[in-house]
Amino acid sequence: MKARVHVMLKNGVLDPQGEAVRHALGALGFDGVQGVRQGKVIELDLADGTPEATVTEMCEKLLANTVIESYSVELV
Amino acid sequence: MKARVHVMLKNGVLDPQGEAVRHALGALGFDGVQGVRQGKVIELDLADGTPEATVTEMCEKLLANTVIESYSVELV
Repeated sequence: MKARVHVMLKNGVLDPQGEAVRHALGALGFDGVQGVRQGKVIELDLADGTPEATVTEMCEKLLANTVIESYSVELV
Repeated sequence: MKARVHVMLKNGVLDPQGEAVRHALGALGFDGVQGVRQGKVIELDLADGTPEATVTEMCEKLLANTVIESYSVELV
């Protein structure tokens, strides 16, 4: 089975990477880009029957820095 | 409107970040993690009515390195 974890910076946390992308898109002539946030996506190949709670624990312990990042887990 | 772009390394391209995460999960006692791939997710805040083709163009020109990365666009 597979799980997909999205890790994004929380709202209010400055995102310089996203800001750089926004500027670059503007410089390339793409108008109307009001904001860009960049995050991580982690695809895990897990043993069948791994409960979602285990993936949540992985996020809490390793995959996300919960002080500044939020995460969401999706079993595929 | 919002668009979400996923950028992942293509299959066959070595992913040292993902490999590092896999090792770290094993070291933390999570068994059964067979593989990990790490990619980027980019959330774009766009002017209403921006066509998906424009977002695809952004991916081709800036967001993804199409030699080694694949991308998918999702309008939210």
